[in-house]
Amino acid sequence: MKIELKDIEKVLKENDNFYILTHKSPDGDTLGSAFALCFALQKMNKNAKVLCSDVIPEKYKFLYENLEIQNFNPKYIISVDVAEAQLLGDILNCYANQIDLSIDHHMLNQKFAKLWYIDSTAAATAEIIYEIIRKLEVRLDFNIAKCIYTGVSTDTGCFKNANTSARSHRIAAKMIDLGVDNFKIDKIMFDTKSKTKLNLEKIALNSFEFFNNDKCAIISLTNEEINKFDTCESDFDGFSVIPRQVEGVLIGIFLREFEPGKFKVSVRTDESIDASMICAYFNGGGHRCAAGCIIYGTLTETKNKLVNIINRFVG
Amino acid sequence: MKIELKDIEKVLKENDNFYILTHKSPDGDTLGSAFALCFALQKMNKNAKVLCSDVIPEKYKFLYENLEIQNFNPKYIISVDVAEAQLLGDILNCYANQIDLSIDHHMLNQKFAKLWYIDSTAAATAEIIYEIIRKLEVRLDFNIAKCIYTGVSTDTGCFKNANTSARSHRIAAKMIDLGVDNFKIDKIMFDTKSKTKLNLEKIALNSFEFFNNDKCAIISLTNEEINKFDTCESDFDGFSVIPRQVEGVLIGIFLREFEPGKFKVSVRTDESIDASMICAYFNGGGHRCAAGCIIYGTLTETKNKLVNIINRFVG
Repeated sequence: MKIELKDIEKVLKENDNFYILTHKSPDGDTLGSAFALCFALQKMNKNAKVLCSDVIPEKYKFLYENLEIQNFNPKYIISVDVAEAQLLGDILNCYANQIDLSIDHHMLNQKFAKLWYIDSTAAATAEIIYEIIRKLEVRLDFNIAKCIYTGVSTDTGCFKNANTSARSHRIAAKMIDLGVDNFKIDKIMFDTKSKTKLNLEKIALNSFEFFNNDKCAIISLTNEEINKFDTCESDFDGFSVIPRQVEGVLIGIFLREFEPGKFKVSVRTDESIDASMICAYFNGGGHRCAAGCIIYGTLTETKNKLVNIINRFVG
Repeated sequence: MKIELKDIEKVLKENDNFYILTHKSPDGDTLGSAFALCFALQKMNKNAKVLCSDVIPEKYKFLYENLEIQNFNPKYIISVDVAEAQLLGDILNCYANQIDLSIDHHMLNQKFAKLWYIDSTAAATAEIIYEIIRKLEVRLDFNIAKCIYTGVSTDTGCFKNANTSARSHRIAAKMIDLGVDNFKIDKIMFDTKSKTKLNLEKIALNSFEFFNNDKCAIISLTNEEINKFDTCESDFDGFSVIPRQVEGVLIGIFLREFEPGKFKVSVRTDESIDASMICAYFNGGGHRCAAGCIIYGTLTETKNKLVNIINRFVG
């Protein structure tokens, strides 16, 4: 059942022993939202705990370093920033049918919980959590503020993505007023890369190829190139957008051969071209300006398959 | 003579026929500040005009597309975001001794004008211009708002640099309320690069060298490498920060040989190390985490000179 913001206040006040679940492969928004809510509930003298199916990456440690770890049996289960139950991941999957309240900003939230509050105008779930906490009789403090800031900043791509609103900036301003070191957080989130990532970037830049009178650009990382390094998932962050950034490119494609002969294809387009329609030819999908698919073959075969389809979009 | 914000209001009201001068190699802040002020003065039925020694890059055209071009003899000359007279550039150099008012946020403003208002707590000069316009009897409109937003966004590196404050975010929020398409502006400013820039990036990434147990990283573009392309100033944007972004690097240096045997050195440091002290050894200066200097010599000589000094900072 859909509920309103004011109902959430009531629900949180009336219940106790909260488990707050994040989505798998956790990011700054699901974690920031979960820990902010957890801090707030603990300040209300409730028992509360954040759970995640995956190990929380080291760089998010500052979000929960002052949190009290409490052990209790859950009586009320909340998911934050989780668009569908399967995104809870393997370990939290056991709670999939027991979610009491889902708080989310994804328009396509699958409404798997008993109660849900979905505000798709929010750039980040952390913006919703901010509003919820303001309604509670809890003083927003530094611990909560850094979680909220991290959620907003990461989900807006440091205030650069299309979802960034006046509200995002206003919340950021308030969190900075509360002492958040925005520079330090954004430096960790956006301005730090591993040496491995640097090496992959070199290879990817050297692979640049232009097609269709430079309206399409493709970069690639082959399995052999990737295997030269000890990579982790975050080493591949941001590669998808690189080819589209070049002036005049309407379709930018990043090919990552994650298994020999199997390419993960990330397509980024100008607003004039529908990326999800390109990917639909290969049984993929996504949004208008960002979509993906899988293509099997050698690097050359994969490029040829793509260029053949792209000819239909940028003659 | 130093003046206060309220005095600027008086000065602008009492005078007419304003020339507003930007610094050479204009960026989003000097241009955004100048055009915002120009729009505001024209709305007060004053004559006002923006002048720049260099051709304004195409990407800033949206800032002034609705501005009325007025021809008149100047009676009052203002410089915005110009830290010292020589930064006016060759064409505007003739005004160097005639500046009536300097509005700036650079702490090291050389106070070359008859009157000056310097607020070094402002992340961008555009933040100061916003405050000035609020004091005038002028309604902030869309034309002014997109100039102010562009100034704040570009000088804060899209709200990511150390200077980004709650005030920067609050002003951004207000400008978005006034209809500014922040996503579109930031895409032009931060997410679009020329093919030339891409080629320079490839060369720079391939030049990566690490020193002092990887605590220092240097990248370079030699004069010969640069001359292979038809470059413009904006093709070099953002190179300074690349070496510092690598995990563990405390001192990141970008060397640009802008004339044979003459290197522009950009130093970016972790907060633990004072970049301006490193540059002081070479008669340069700047801020704690971002500073610069000029070094003469071959590429190898320049690197050796730097590494010798850096040894004193990261043993």
